[in-house]
Amino acid sequence: MRIHHVGIAVSDLDASIAMYRDVFHAELTHRVASPSEGQETALMSAGGTELELMMPTREDSPVGKFVAKRGPGMHHVAFAVPDIRKALAEARAAGMQLVDEEPRTGVHGSPIAFIHPKSAGGVLTELVEE
Amino acid sequence: MRIHHVGIAVSDLDASIAMYRDVFHAELTHRVASPSEGQETALMSAGGTELELMMPTREDSPVGKFVAKRGPGMHHVAFAVPDIRKALAEARAAGMQLVDEEPRTGVHGSPIAFIHPKSAGGVLTELVEE
Repeated sequence: MRIHHVGIAVSDLDASIAMYRDVFHAELTHRVASPSEGQETALMSAGGTELELMMPTREDSPVGKFVAKRGPGMHHVAFAVPDIRKALAEARAAGMQLVDEEPRTGVHGSPIAFIHPKSAGGVLTELVEE
Repeated sequence: MRIHHVGIAVSDLDASIAMYRDVFHAELTHRVASPSEGQETALMSAGGTELELMMPTREDSPVGKFVAKRGPGMHHVAFAVPDIRKALAEARAAGMQLVDEEPRTGVHGSPIAFIHPKSAGGVLTELVEE
């Protein structure tokens, strides 16, 4: 299992893309608005791992509430797994609390599911099947 | 430039190592106590990227203060760079505020330096030369 991406909540998507491009030489690979989730997302490639930059487009969206409460910053860590249903079953068996009992389709187009930070040492943890 | 590791502040190092080993199949590669920094650190390999788990051993250490204020959770993101002095000069030229003006030796044995989260969208950002 490898780290698939690090999710970062941002308040200015253009400025964040420019910073990771100019200072950290990451490459913008995808940018998409998700009105139903109230966020705009940019994926940037940094070696084999991605950065997922998420800007709220509504204050009451999940990312909007996060930024209102904690400010912009690190939001989640995602692990790539070969079989997400098996990984979810393992997490459940280990006593972890799942945000998504069933996989759903993420911004990457792959099945994803989140594990609650309460049961993962304070880290909002995502599984991505690939 | 690739993501070298994700730093995670933890309150129970043994439990966190067990969780990342058993649920996420990460492998413990290194464990070291750093009394001068007031923390004990475990490095775990997850594909090409590492997890750096940091447990405070004193409440008044930098990681101890972080955990007291925000609880355990994501602490920093580290990028691998070929030349840390060049990368620091680029960050400085981009107007970023450096925590370490000069590189110092990190737990990996490599030169490292931190960039202040205030100037990096709320993300405590580390550079690691390799």
